[in-house]
Amino acid sequence: MNVKLINYTANPIETAFVAARTCYSGDGPEKLWELSISDGENKIPEEKMHSLLDKVIASGHLSVLEHISFTFAIEGISRACSHQLVRHRIANFSQQSQRYVSIKRDAFVIPSTIKANREARKIFDELIDSAKSAYDKLVELGIPKEDARFVIPNAAKTNIVMTMNFRELYNVCQIRLCTRAQWEIRTLFWKIKGELAKVEELKGLADYLQPKCVILGYCPEHRSCGLYPTREEVVGDDS
Amino acid sequence: MNVKLINYTANPIETAFVAARTCYSGDGPEKLWELSISDGENKIPEEKMHSLLDKVIASGHLSVLEHISFTFAIEGISRACSHQLVRHRIANFSQQSQRYVSIKRDAFVIPSTIKANREARKIFDELIDSAKSAYDKLVELGIPKEDARFVIPNAAKTNIVMTMNFRELYNVCQIRLCTRAQWEIRTLFWKIKGELAKVEELKGLADYLQPKCVILGYCPEHRSCGLYPTREEVVGDDS
Amino acid sequence: MNVKLINYTANPIETAFVAARTCYSGDGPEKLWELSISDGENKIPEEKMHSLLDKVIASGHLSVLEHISFTFAIEGISRACSHQLVRHRIANFSQQSQRYVSIKRDAFVIPSTIKANREARKIFDELIDSAKSAYDKLVELGIPKEDARFVIPNAAKTNIVMTMNFRELYNVCQIRLCTRAQWEIRTLFWKIKGELAKVEELKGLADYLQPKCVILGYCPEHRSCGLYPTREEVVGDDS
Amino acid sequence: MNVKLINYTANPIETAFVAARTCYSGDGPEKLWELSISDGENKIPEEKMHSLLDKVIASGHLSVLEHISFTFAIEGISRACSHQLVRHRIANFSQQSQRYVSIKRDAFVIPSTIKANREARKIFDELIDSAKSAYDKLVELGIPKEDARFVIPNAAKTNIVMTMNFRELYNVCQIRLCTRAQWEIRTLFWKIKGELAKVEELKGLADYLQPKCVILGYCPEHRSCGLYPTREEVVGDDS
Repeated sequence: MNVKLINYTANPIETAFVAARTCYSGDGPEKLWELSISDGENKIPEEKMHSLLDKVIASGHLSVLEHISFTFAIEGISRACSHQLVRHRIANFSQQSQRYVSIKRDAFVIPSTIKANREARKIFDELIDSAKSAYDKLVELGIPKEDARFVIPNAAKTNIVMTMNFRELYNVCQIRLCTRAQWEIRTLFWKIKGELAKVEELKGLADYLQPKCVILGYCPEHRSCGLYPTREEVVGDDS
Repeated sequence: MNVKLINYTANPIETAFVAARTCYSGDGPEKLWELSISDGENKIPEEKMHSLLDKVIASGHLSVLEHISFTFAIEGISRACSHQLVRHRIANFSQQSQRYVSIKRDAFVIPSTIKANREARKIFDELIDSAKSAYDKLVELGIPKEDARFVIPNAAKTNIVMTMNFRELYNVCQIRLCTRAQWEIRTLFWKIKGELAKVEELKGLADYLQPKCVILGYCPEHRSCGLYPTREEVVGDDS
Repeated sequence: MNVKLINYTANPIETAFVAARTCYSGDGPEKLWELSISDGENKIPEEKMHSLLDKVIASGHLSVLEHISFTFAIEGISRACSHQLVRHRIANFSQQSQRYVSIKRDAFVIPSTIKANREARKIFDELIDSAKSAYDKLVELGIPKEDARFVIPNAAKTNIVMTMNFRELYNVCQIRLCTRAQWEIRTLFWKIKGELAKVEELKGLADYLQPKCVILGYCPEHRSCGLYPTREEVVGDDS
Repeated sequence: MNVKLINYTANPIETAFVAARTCYSGDGPEKLWELSISDGENKIPEEKMHSLLDKVIASGHLSVLEHISFTFAIEGISRACSHQLVRHRIANFSQQSQRYVSIKRDAFVIPSTIKANREARKIFDELIDSAKSAYDKLVELGIPKEDARFVIPNAAKTNIVMTMNFRELYNVCQIRLCTRAQWEIRTLFWKIKGELAKVEELKGLADYLQPKCVILGYCPEHRSCGLYPTREEVVGDDS
């Protein structure tokens, strides 16, 4: 799996700050924007912007985060994973099509439980070989790619360009960074968080991306993985 | 593939009519609703409601159609098809999970191009058998279902409960009833249209569901399937 | 303000149950649906359905709630309130238009703080009279309604037909039932909750609609209204 | 009204191109991205990117346009206009709140039909003065701003930060650039189009923003403004 942040809203903190300030200010957003990005002495200090963002996120007033978007190049996740990923509806996906693009021999994801088990690995490799071989024969017989791909297993790799705004990324990470999430999509979102953390001006935003227990202060699931106590243990059973 | 309309907004025409009338009327929606569904002599005639709906759809003022929703039980489509289906984001899907539900031997979709070709059919059947057998062996070896399913091909059948409002259904049918759509999802949406057509009070709504060429009066694709002339042939190249 | 539930998904609990069960069952949704709504001895017991719903809501797996929708006739809220209301984007609104419908003299909302203050009430009434009179004169002078309405105050009443699914209603109520919400929209959503509570088969769903502190077990705002302690007081400052 | 494009997706054409190519290419999006933005001799020529974009837009495959977003500072539109604007649900709005920000004397929009009529203008000005004066007195009497604003007319100016992706902007412009759209929101979207046209790398995108008749090749409304013939005149009454 290869994840690369290829594009994002320039001046993201400034953009969210100007949006948040516009709600409570007599000043217009154009002036607020100039004060935010200027180099002059009237420039709004960065700490002030960060502090406002902290406050709106802590109290759950998240809509200003939607002004910030991120575009990721996601390569080599399995079709099992991509099927889960595209269930997130507040995002945009452009995905490699199996109707048009031929399947390559090496383009399959191997789960680590299978990698770690010699016998399982053998079964897996043989099936992948059979599937690839069946696919090639079907195409040779004149079966259209869009039908030949019916023999291709879930393990097949796919590529996706995904654009997601920061509010949705904050929400999705609560679910997908959780230890209960399926391993491949969990890995994907930890890599996504990692991509933000690599960029100096996005480090602060990366810190907001956390599994839901960290956000809530407890685990809302029936059983906790142990990282946090359950809701009942923390707030009692008042509901 | 088995498609069944299991639930829908009661009094759908009346609901859309009341919504549309509320925009232009001094009367409140509660009174309009009573006049729409009453049996009294003041009842708004059905033809009047249909005629207003015709008008709003013809001129593209579609938002009142969102008040009408349909819930479908969709059984036995391939995972290739479901992956396409869930790309429609203005709808709600509850899908059978391969992480939790075991794969059965007979649960695979066979494309008709493969059915029609004896040699292809043999290759297909053998691969499906191998895949099912590999899956079973992996599970026996203690590989979790969520990882064993990596060997399961796209042909595997899945079940989905889908709720979609009528505006989105109108939009999606324009794309998916088109002869350019992939055959399985095209079949699915023709069956969906058919499910509406079976219900007396939904017949009129089913008639609105058409491929985009019927709605537009021309084919907007680069090449037409022949059903309608292209945009250029109809309106010239003025753009 | 007059709020009336005019339409909703029939068999709402059964619909959400079938959606939730489809995810984890080898049985298809059509069969599950029949077992849910049948009167036979194989009927799935109601308590079992409620209990599954409790579980999915408690753990935050809310998407099955989207299969249930409600349509409300909302009459006589102010345009100040409707401007807030339509900011909720996962819903559908059909609103009375001031471009087409004439303004009536008595169609204005009076805030209770103004009602309770004789002097303020006098100022308010005079201004409303002046505004109504200015509007009438502008229309007489041939100014189009859509421009004459520029003199109409925020207090002007409006009607809306709103359809919202139960997941969104659950989310919006967390914000709008809170004592921090502006009084008019708070009243609106308490009435909406009340409309569900009036219907026998919706009582259970109405109970899920709560301000966010009840859901979370603490108040996430900087300062609590006193109903619940703050997040910091309950879970400490670990974030 | 003052409209300013304050932020947008860098390399917009390249971003949409990479997304579109990913669907049909064996190459991954990271490599495609490097070839798109590089300065080297392998750089994908700009005409090739524009030509692909032309093709996807002409055939209505618009989802790749969602990867491009624009953020506008919108100042001094009326609350009548903002109420319409926020009805577009696939966008994000951060709006100046009348609950918190005091109303200023000069902050009202005057429709041109009223400006052009001396008598109407007098009625309008007097009402605005009365409203502002009533507001000030109510605040002095201790009425909270959120209630005092009930006397403020629709003409009151507001500020909004709006982020909208290019697909939605393309769709919304079809409706709001039309001569049937209300004058203030029509002006707003012509200014939005103008903001894109001012930026060298966005000129091409601005050209795609057109009223629906230009896109369709005919006017879909019952009566045309005359710019284009109606659907019936162009394609006949086959529906």
